[in-house]
Amino acid sequence: MDLVTVRELYRNREEYLDKEVTIGGWVRSIRDSKTFGFIVVNDGSFFENLQVVYHDNMENFGEISKLNVGAAIIVKGTLVATPQAKQPFEIQATEVVVEGTSAPDYPLQKKRHSFEYLRSIAHLRPRTNTFQAVFRVRSLTAYAIHKFFQERGFVYVHTPLITGSDCEGAGEMFQVTTLDMNNVPKNADGTVDYSKDFFGKETNLTVSGQLNGETYAQAFRNIYTFGPTFRAENSNTTRHAAEFWMIEPEIAFADLEDDMILAENMLKYVIRYVMENAPEEMNFFNSFVDKGLIDRLNNVVNSDFARVTYTEAIEILEKHNDKFEYKVSWGADLQTEHERYLTEEIYKRPVFVTDYPKEIKAFYMKMNDDNKTVAAVDCLVPGIGEIIGGSQREDDYDKLVARMKELGLKEEDYGFYLDLRKYGSTRHAGFGLGFERCIMYLTGMSNIRDVIPFPRTVNNCEL
Amino acid sequence: MDLVTVRELYRNREEYLDKEVTIGGWVRSIRDSKTFGFIVVNDGSFFENLQVVYHDNMENFGEISKLNVGAAIIVKGTLVATPQAKQPFEIQATEVVVEGTSAPDYPLQKKRHSFEYLRSIAHLRPRTNTFQAVFRVRSLTAYAIHKFFQERGFVYVHTPLITGSDCEGAGEMFQVTTLDMNNVPKNADGTVDYSKDFFGKETNLTVSGQLNGETYAQAFRNIYTFGPTFRAENSNTTRHAAEFWMIEPEIAFADLEDDMILAENMLKYVIRYVMENAPEEMNFFNSFVDKGLIDRLNNVVNSDFARVTYTEAIEILEKHNDKFEYKVSWGADLQTEHERYLTEEIYKRPVFVTDYPKEIKAFYMKMNDDNKTVAAVDCLVPGIGEIIGGSQREDDYDKLVARMKELGLKEEDYGFYLDLRKYGSTRHAGFGLGFERCIMYLTGMSNIRDVIPFPRTVNNCEL
Repeated sequence: MDLVTVRELYRNREEYLDKEVTIGGWVRSIRDSKTFGFIVVNDGSFFENLQVVYHDNMENFGEISKLNVGAAIIVKGTLVATPQAKQPFEIQATEVVVEGTSAPDYPLQKKRHSFEYLRSIAHLRPRTNTFQAVFRVRSLTAYAIHKFFQERGFVYVHTPLITGSDCEGAGEMFQVTTLDMNNVPKNADGTVDYSKDFFGKETNLTVSGQLNGETYAQAFRNIYTFGPTFRAENSNTTRHAAEFWMIEPEIAFADLEDDMILAENMLKYVIRYVMENAPEEMNFFNSFVDKGLIDRLNNVVNSDFARVTYTEAIEILEKHNDKFEYKVSWGADLQTEHERYLTEEIYKRPVFVTDYPKEIKAFYMKMNDDNKTVAAVDCLVPGIGEIIGGSQREDDYDKLVARMKELGLKEEDYGFYLDLRKYGSTRHAGFGLGFERCIMYLTGMSNIRDVIPFPRTVNNCEL
Repeated sequence: MDLVTVRELYRNREEYLDKEVTIGGWVRSIRDSKTFGFIVVNDGSFFENLQVVYHDNMENFGEISKLNVGAAIIVKGTLVATPQAKQPFEIQATEVVVEGTSAPDYPLQKKRHSFEYLRSIAHLRPRTNTFQAVFRVRSLTAYAIHKFFQERGFVYVHTPLITGSDCEGAGEMFQVTTLDMNNVPKNADGTVDYSKDFFGKETNLTVSGQLNGETYAQAFRNIYTFGPTFRAENSNTTRHAAEFWMIEPEIAFADLEDDMILAENMLKYVIRYVMENAPEEMNFFNSFVDKGLIDRLNNVVNSDFARVTYTEAIEILEKHNDKFEYKVSWGADLQTEHERYLTEEIYKRPVFVTDYPKEIKAFYMKMNDDNKTVAAVDCLVPGIGEIIGGSQREDDYDKLVARMKELGLKEEDYGFYLDLRKYGSTRHAGFGLGFERCIMYLTGMSNIRDVIPFPRTVNNCEL
């Protein structure tokens, strides 16, 4: 159908003023007097609504006036400037065609609904202001990430979702199977006979694409992944979901310093892109969801991120131990309260904390010369704490094998990964950005269930 | 590290000629005489290699000359034009630093390996010419798809991977569970007690994001999904994988005609983008993988796609039934041989076949007035047959419910989907593009295992 979008009318209004236009959209509100009425329409292309004025010279005036919120209509009319009104223009309709009515029990009436209630109607909530804004920002953020990496020649790699290995023991996994659960085939010794399963062995949903990603970085030099990741953690918090998306770039011929530069540039790029391309949505969040959001994001964009080693950070934080629920001391992982104190109170800008004790980080991180810390980095941002975690990878075959032995990991499970250290190993680094964490940061939304279209959490897999 | 990429040297050579440059990459071949040698290096940023000349005035001349294929090196030197040679320039090295050696058993020697062998070393095959080309094209294609939709204001929606419903019965599904397979909890009646499972019910991996996508189209008007999809089909063919990626746009206030225009524009855009951004790779495919590829793609870009109804197509094909293994007749689904005959022999360009018998299409497709056919469309392209399948959706509540009843689908399983027809229903349409099918089409690669970084097929879930 040849319809103009409301976005187009707002962005290029001069082209359309005083001309006939046809739009299609959904009724947000409607009120009528005896001879005319107003309909506020949203067409999903743009955060702002469009007001339509209709008159009783239309033969379906009665039908229109009876429309309920949520109805779909197609409106033809003249776009007229309204200098006295709040909105910049309206349509003086010559024709309003009802595309689809909305039943009287439409769950979204013109009142404020709680986020909790809206979660129970995940298929309808994108029709509300908040979720229009959230999910448009989500879409733009995803694109900004692709754009950032593609403009820099990074190769996008689809790492596998179904996996035969628990790469880094990063968390509880979901099992994937085609075995009949009512009648699980067993071996003679009573164990499950996985030779009968689809892949002929036990398989799970991935918790990270990093190890696979590294293999591609050793071929393409700079790569990134952007795909779903799964955790079967039984944690019912506002920050955990069983299914979420991750971005994991990996760069060869690169060290921890390169990794930090990449992370800083990426975050700034994404924030800028979203603020430029969704100003209406960002203003909405700033006004109604998280006052101070835009200042905070501007501060990130305009700051040079600070740098501090874990050891230095501990020294700084120990002086303020009276303020913390969990007291800090060297060797313990930083809690969110410590992270936020560092970035909000000490530095007042984003900060990279580097060189963590090896005991609290993954096996593949590069050992520093002190033999106590590894070349890990967490990026902390005001308002949230850790948003990115990364590291330079151990590229020395012998050191990696030694560390794996210390941790009881079997060499044979990591043959492909060790091969990378055998055949043309390079210093290399990478990081992981939780996509939903990033959206929460950009929007100020405080529950991960409200930034995922159809969230999956413990005991919740609706629609 | 401050390295220039080989891509940058090729694309902006004038800036670098006769200047000192430093590159990092992997040895593709090496040969030396007593006093100097040549190394062919690929740095993963670009399909073409770079030749490095080194001399015995370097103190590590011996070390360099002993390098094996696959070793990682960092080369400093002057970029010099080589007008007499096949390649446009080379580096006259002043320094070659060995970043990582390559063990003598490096599996990729300078000879042709079979695709089958390379599948067994999926972590190393991206270092070969063919797979460098395939996976760069895969990355660019993914980006082109995002770019196409984002430039048109479409909202990217992440539909869920784990699902509680088998939306359209599109195929065998993988079960997702955290139950202990060795000791599956049972109800009193002997059935599996799914209340103990992570989500409190039986869950599977999605076979399509379409139904979820429709809910967002009814809010944002134009949306697309781009994510992984799963089929647990026990079919060991060159065209089936258990895990693959799909693109599923959905457009509201739109009919089948709009859907076809969108599909045609998208395909042309993607082909153009890849040909412009990966000319070296496309020439390689055209020379070594699929002669005629570029002509075929150019033909698609420059054609107006043909249109024919299923009923007309059957009439045309029946005249050629002697040529087909499976004879055509009204009511039967088209086989690949028929599809290819239509697009390659009859139309000699892409063709949309529309209005299929309702019996061979999904329940949600819009019934035509004849009550026998539905507003479905398949896009057929030369060399492959069907590449896109789509339809206008049934937007009438009563008709949809009636069709569901005919097919024995339970209304209560589709409550959210029926809601869309109750609250502001609009005519709407969409299609699905199998991403791997698209990559096979763009590259001429004939086995789906060779266009997925780490393919998952029956009995195969390695790395």
